[in-house]
Amino acid sequence: MRARAAVLAEVKKPLEIWELEVDAPKEGEVLVRVVAAGVCHSDLHYIQGDLETPLPAIPGHEGAGVVEAVGPGVTRFRPGDPVVFVFRAFCGHCFYCLNGRPALCDFSNPIRRTGRMFDGTTRFHRNGTDVHHVLGVSCFAEYTVVPEQGLLSLPPDIPLDRAALVGCGVTTGVGAVLFAAGVRAGETVLVIGCGGVGLNVVQGAALVGAGPVIAADVVPQKLEWARQLGATHTIDPREQDVVEVVRELTGGRGADYAFEVIGRADTIQQAYAATRKGGTTVIVGLTPMGTTVPLDPLDLLRTEKTIKATLYGSANLPRDIPRLLELYRLGRLRLDELISRRLRLEEINDGFEAMLAGSVARSIVVFEH
Amino acid sequence: MRARAAVLAEVKKPLEIWELEVDAPKEGEVLVRVVAAGVCHSDLHYIQGDLETPLPAIPGHEGAGVVEAVGPGVTRFRPGDPVVFVFRAFCGHCFYCLNGRPALCDFSNPIRRTGRMFDGTTRFHRNGTDVHHVLGVSCFAEYTVVPEQGLLSLPPDIPLDRAALVGCGVTTGVGAVLFAAGVRAGETVLVIGCGGVGLNVVQGAALVGAGPVIAADVVPQKLEWARQLGATHTIDPREQDVVEVVRELTGGRGADYAFEVIGRADTIQQAYAATRKGGTTVIVGLTPMGTTVPLDPLDLLRTEKTIKATLYGSANLPRDIPRLLELYRLGRLRLDELISRRLRLEEINDGFEAMLAGSVARSIVVFEH
Repeated sequence: MRARAAVLAEVKKPLEIWELEVDAPKEGEVLVRVVAAGVCHSDLHYIQGDLETPLPAIPGHEGAGVVEAVGPGVTRFRPGDPVVFVFRAFCGHCFYCLNGRPALCDFSNPIRRTGRMFDGTTRFHRNGTDVHHVLGVSCFAEYTVVPEQGLLSLPPDIPLDRAALVGCGVTTGVGAVLFAAGVRAGETVLVIGCGGVGLNVVQGAALVGAGPVIAADVVPQKLEWARQLGATHTIDPREQDVVEVVRELTGGRGADYAFEVIGRADTIQQAYAATRKGGTTVIVGLTPMGTTVPLDPLDLLRTEKTIKATLYGSANLPRDIPRLLELYRLGRLRLDELISRRLRLEEINDGFEAMLAGSVARSIVVFEH
Repeated sequence: MRARAAVLAEVKKPLEIWELEVDAPKEGEVLVRVVAAGVCHSDLHYIQGDLETPLPAIPGHEGAGVVEAVGPGVTRFRPGDPVVFVFRAFCGHCFYCLNGRPALCDFSNPIRRTGRMFDGTTRFHRNGTDVHHVLGVSCFAEYTVVPEQGLLSLPPDIPLDRAALVGCGVTTGVGAVLFAAGVRAGETVLVIGCGGVGLNVVQGAALVGAGPVIAADVVPQKLEWARQLGATHTIDPREQDVVEVVRELTGGRGADYAFEVIGRADTIQQAYAATRKGGTTVIVGLTPMGTTVPLDPLDLLRTEKTIKATLYGSANLPRDIPRLLELYRLGRLRLDELISRRLRLEEINDGFEAMLAGSVARSIVVFEH
C-alpha cells in the first residue's frame, strides 16, 4: 500500500514528506494505521545527528493507532485493535523482561541497530530505495509496520492522541519518579528542564505527594506549565542560582532527588550539586553521543549520593502503561493539558521548531485518514 | 598524662613513635585507653598524602579500648566501659542521624577539617607543639581523647581486638553489601580488591546468600582468603579478563552488583563494565583526592545502571554495630580469621609495608599497657 511519511533523508535538515510504498506485514509483524504521533526531543536528536540511525529513515516513536492487518503467526492483535507503540519491543521471556525491566530486553537491538526488521529488510521503500525504520516504530507515517512485541493493547475509551503520549514522554517522566527513583510523599524534588518529559517528572512528583517540587527552566512559559502540573517553586537559572535556591528550600541540605531532563553535561553536574547527601541524582535527559561528565568518586563516597539514569521511566511497560492510563481516567494524571498543539503531518517541522523555541510542551501530529 | 603514639610528622615518611603529653578530657570528651587499633588503608592515604589532614598528627581510626576518664557533662560513658571508636562522630538528632545515616552527620566536620577538638585546641602535645587529631579518633596512641559522640559501647564479651575491626573495615565492607547495596540471596556479586575491606564485602555477600560471589585481586593469598570467606570464584586480573569472566559466570549479563574496593579510576571503570544492565556499581574504595572517572550519561541511561558509593558501609552505626557483633557471636560473621598479624606500636610501619605487599588481610596494633 501507499502512505505518506516524514522522512529524515539527511541529518541537520528538515524532515521531508515522502509518499512511500509500505509492504504487508511479514511473520510476527503488524501493520498499524497511525492516528497520533508525538513530536519528542529524541527525534530531534536523530535529526541533529546527536544520535545515529541508518538513513533515510522515518522517525517517530511516541504514537498510537489502530491495527490494520497482522502478519502470519500474530496472535495477540487483530485488525481494529487500538494500540500504543513501545519503542523498546520486548520478548517477554528473558531475564530483563521477567525482572520487570522490559526496556532492557535485547530483543529489538537488531532493529534499532540496522533500521531493518529481523529478516534484514525494510517495509518502507521509495523508487526501489529502502527507507529505514527508527527504533522499530517509525510512527511519523500514515501506516507503519512493527514487530508485534512493539505494541501494547489500549483500552477502547482512551483517545488515541492522549494514549500516544504514554508511549514515551509521560511514561518516561512519570516513571522516572515512580519507578526509577521511587519518590515518596514529603520528599523533596528538583526537576531541571521542563519540556515534554520534564513536565511529566513534575506531575509525577506531584502525584506521589512530593514537596517542595522545584522546577527549573529558562523559558517562563514552561515554568508556568510546571506550576500548573504541580511544581511548588520554579527557578529561572538565568536569574537565580539553582543549587542555592534548592538548598534554601530544603533546610540547607539539597534535594532528596534531582532529575536532569535536558541531557547536558553542565545540567547533570548542577543536578548532582543540588542533590543532598545520601540523595539521588536521576538522569532522564538523553545526552548527545560522546558526552562525558567527570565523576569524583571521593565526593560521591563522602556524600553517599546515588547516580542513576532511567530509560523509558524504568517502567514495567505492560504493567505500568495500563496503570498510567487508569490514573488518567481517574483524574490523577493529566494528559489533555500536555498537548499544546495539534499538527498535520505536513507541519511536522513546525513542531520541532516550536520545541526548540520552547513555545510548546508537546506537539502532536494527528493523521487525517 | 604521658603516652606513646605513632605520629605522622610528614607525608610520604614512616610514622614516628613519639612520647606525648595527653590532656585530660574537656567538656563532652572522653579519655580512652586504647587496647587495639587496626592498620587500615585509609591511614595509608594520609601517610601518602592522597588525603589531607593537618600535621603533625596521630592517625588510626579503627580501634577499641576502655574508658579511662570522662570530661564534664559526659553521661553515656563511665570509666571501665569497653568502647569502639566511630570515625564519624554523630550528633544523634539531625536530619541525617534520624534518617539512619549518622555517618553523613555534619557534627564532627570541624574536627576532621582542623585536626582539633571543638574548642580549637588539641589534646596531644610534644615540647609545646600541638599534635593533631585525625578523624577525631587518633587511636594509634596508648591513650586518646575523643568527643563522646565518637564512641559506642561494646558488650563485655567481645574481645577488643575483634571489636576494633568493626570500627571500620568490617562495617564498611559488610555494610556495603547489607546496607548500601541491599544484596539478596541468589544475586550475583563481583568484588574487585580483596584487602581488609574487600574481604568483608566478600563475607557480607556470602552472609546474605549471594552467588556467584566473584573476587578479583592480583595477590594469590588474598584470593585464598576470599575463598575462605565465601567467594565462589576468584580471578587474578593479570591472568584473566575480569569483565569476560564475570559475564561467563552470570549468563552473559554481568554482575547484579559490582563492588570496587581499591579506590582507583581504572578499577571503578572495570566494575562499571562488569555490572549488568539495571545493576549497581558500588564504590567502596577511597580514591586519592582529585581522581575523576569519566561518566557516559548516555551509556548509563541505555543500560540503566546505578552508581553509588558507600561511606562506613552506609550503616546506622548504633543499630548496626551491635547487630554485626551479634552475628559474630552467633558464628555468622567471621572476625577472628581477619586478623593476620598482631603488632606492637613500634612495629606499626611493618603493618603498612605488609599491607602494601599484600601479605596481610589486616594487621592490628595491640597495646601493652
